[in-house]
Amino acid sequence: MQTLHVELGERRYPIFIGSHLPVQECLAPYIKGRQVMIVSNTTVAPLYMAGYQDALEHAGKQVMTCILPDGEAYKNIDTLNLIFDALLAARFNRDCTVLALGGGVIGDMAGFAAASFQRGVDFVQVPTTLLSQVDSSVGGKTGINHPLGKNMIGAFKQPSVVMADMAQLDTLADRELSAGLAEIIKYALLGDQDFLVWLEAHMEQLVARDANLLAEAVYRSCAHKARIVAADEHEHGDRALLNLGHTFGHAIEAYLGYGEWLHGEAVAAGMVMAADLSCRMGWINAADVNRVRQIIARAHLPTVCPAIPVEQFMALMAQDKKVLAGQLRLILLKQVGQAVISRDATPELIWETIAACQQPAHPVGEQNA
Amino acid sequence: MQTLHVELGERRYPIFIGSHLPVQECLAPYIKGRQVMIVSNTTVAPLYMAGYQDALEHAGKQVMTCILPDGEAYKNIDTLNLIFDALLAARFNRDCTVLALGGGVIGDMAGFAAASFQRGVDFVQVPTTLLSQVDSSVGGKTGINHPLGKNMIGAFKQPSVVMADMAQLDTLADRELSAGLAEIIKYALLGDQDFLVWLEAHMEQLVARDANLLAEAVYRSCAHKARIVAADEHEHGDRALLNLGHTFGHAIEAYLGYGEWLHGEAVAAGMVMAADLSCRMGWINAADVNRVRQIIARAHLPTVCPAIPVEQFMALMAQDKKVLAGQLRLILLKQVGQAVISRDATPELIWETIAACQQPAHPVGEQNA
Ligand SMILES: NC(=O)c1ccc[n+]([C@@H]2O[C@H](COP(=O)([O-])OP(=O)(O)OC[C@H]3O[C@@H](n4cnc5c(N)ncnc54)[C@H](O)[C@@H]3O)[C@@H](O)[C@H]2O)c1
Ligand SMILES: NC(=O)c1ccc[n+]([C@@H]2O[C@H](COP(=O)([O-])OP(=O)(O)OC[C@H]3O[C@@H](n4cnc5c(N)ncnc54)[C@H](O)[C@@H]3O)[C@@H](O)[C@H]2O)c1
Ligand SMILES: [Zn+2]
Ligand SMILES: [Zn+2]
Repeated sequence: MQTLHVELGERRYPIFIGSHLPVQECLAPYIKGRQVMIVSNTTVAPLYMAGYQDALEHAGKQVMTCILPDGEAYKNIDTLNLIFDALLAARFNRDCTVLALGGGVIGDMAGFAAASFQRGVDFVQVPTTLLSQVDSSVGGKTGINHPLGKNMIGAFKQPSVVMADMAQLDTLADRELSAGLAEIIKYALLGDQDFLVWLEAHMEQLVARDANLLAEAVYRSCAHKARIVAADEHEHGDRALLNLGHTFGHAIEAYLGYGEWLHGEAVAAGMVMAADLSCRMGWINAADVNRVRQIIARAHLPTVCPAIPVEQFMALMAQDKKVLAGQLRLILLKQVGQAVISRDATPELIWETIAACQQPAHPVGEQNA
Repeated sequence: MQTLHVELGERRYPIFIGSHLPVQECLAPYIKGRQVMIVSNTTVAPLYMAGYQDALEHAGKQVMTCILPDGEAYKNIDTLNLIFDALLAARFNRDCTVLALGGGVIGDMAGFAAASFQRGVDFVQVPTTLLSQVDSSVGGKTGINHPLGKNMIGAFKQPSVVMADMAQLDTLADRELSAGLAEIIKYALLGDQDFLVWLEAHMEQLVARDANLLAEAVYRSCAHKARIVAADEHEHGDRALLNLGHTFGHAIEAYLGYGEWLHGEAVAAGMVMAADLSCRMGWINAADVNRVRQIIARAHLPTVCPAIPVEQFMALMAQDKKVLAGQLRLILLKQVGQAVISRDATPELIWETIAACQQPAHPVGEQNA
């Protein structure tokens, strides 16, 4: 078991990372009140909920559960309200704790419910997808979607503890595992060459779900996110680096319709595009781009984007919120392992990158979508 | 015009109090972004919204409006969502400001929307009822009701500025004005004898809506709340004093069904009951109780509670959240002008108070409900 502390002053909290983690040790001591509401979904609850419920009841807690429908489509205000219904039907008070057991969708909704119930109760996170383990467990963002925009309504809510159990990843779909690997690769590309070398040495074992190696990858990823978030809590500067591959990726997601490609898949292709553009700007060379492409392909992720008319692709990129005062702000690679925020890419170069990275135009087609 | 600053460190904000306050001076300079969403209701909007909209547009703002149905019955998640709909339909971004124009219902909903939209945007409050001017403009509580409980879902959200305009009280219903006076009297009774003497000198003029005197009463009330809240941001100690009359009052509201008596009316009768109980405990004398009763009657507020079986009344009090570990925690008067938190009232004395303060049993019946 590894422990990482997210340093937030008073709100400092531990992330426990390992396999078959003991609830009595990792969770129970961090839950102050007696009442615990486990929020999960119809896929995850049958797999893992009973274990948590039993262990917490043995620890003297009054445990109630709230099982939501599964899917991003349910990450909305109506489903959120089901959590409030459950909390109030159980007559839970201000000293209760909301425990999220599931992927990012459950974590985001349960976290927002914890932030809002009685104007804020305790929150504990058990992320069960690789993506939620390396991404949503650090940063405190919670929320729901609105028909007119993703994650438009929410709150910042820090958990009291996060428990990331690699054993639970065994039941995760292959595509979901790869989507999580995309964000892991992102941390390496944006700021940690050593980590990239390590990933290059172990990618096949990670794909095969070696629990020890996954734990190491999660630990390093969370450490990176924690460091970046702590340095820039209010999201003005370096935190933007976490969006490597995301402006391209969001354009792909928006074009295909959300849900067609997984977010991590779109980000994977987006990172190749960011590398390609960085090469066109003269910052990295073709071998570097190929290195990026290789590690992404070995994670069973797409390295080319779908065929999208270039003009439309550029319009979609401009809609992404990282446009400041009309100038496209992109995260690019000064070198592999060092990302920068740049407004220097010309529309012409961006155009060339989009044209070059599309499915038909490109020979390397390891994409799995 | 008077200005009171609520001292919250970084989040320090001014409350402007006066008549026909200039929007250009009191509001516009405190709105950082360009986009302003005025949230109001079908009663208040036709009376006052155009003035704000025009003035803010002249100050260069892009103003959109969101008019909600009027009433506590609409203070729920569905109506809240209408504010998000409006913000997103207008394509408002993170730099926008939500402006609440209305009573406490609008303030609570618009404030929660501001706290949650894009995880928090700026918030400005123009309270248009006396109650919201003296109560919800300080403290930062926002939220909505749930079928199973009032104000169960919400956030702490401090405004950037509050503007309390006495001229707007001219259109307020008499009962609503009196309900606001109940909370004003509360501040005097719980901690300010001088203010009580002042209220005793001016109550008829306040009821007649003398704007200067109302402004003075609002100023003093907000100053009291600001002081108490600042000393106890997390609601563990002295902040409970603000609940003088409220445990009795909530029992009345719960018995009658919310909406039958106004909150301020129930609190008024509750304050007489708290005084009666304080007298039975030997802390104040019968003349003191009568003094409390008089000032409340002169504000056209009820001084006796409805006929409720005493046992049921006590059960309803016990349901109020101010019960800690089974012991009823009440706010009582050590003297008129000095409230304390006490667990010393015996069930027998509480019983006597309830029996003595009921409508049929009591000769003083100035109640207006
Ligand atoms: N708060 C943040 O900082 C943050 C960061 C990144 C993403 N997110 C959000 O997270 C969401 C995506 O999260 P996600 O990728 O975890 O998706 P998800 O929560 O939808 O999970 C993906 C699928 O895997 C299933 N699943 C989860 N754990 C499983 C397990 N152990 N075994 C078998 N199946 C399992 C889920 O039921 C779901 O069907 C998005 O809504 C995104 O906005 C939030
Ligand atoms: N956030 C806080 O700290 C806090 C404190 C106290 C009360 N509250 C909440 O405030 C609400 C009660 O507030 P309220 O008493 O202002 O009730 P309200 O907002 O319902 O207003 C009362 C009535 O007066 C109307 N009205 C408002 N201003 C008017 C004007 N200038 N002229 C004519 N009519 C006008 C309203 O449309 C409504 O019909 C409750 O929901 C309560 O929970 C919140
Ligand atoms: Zn991402
Ligand atoms: Zn009150």
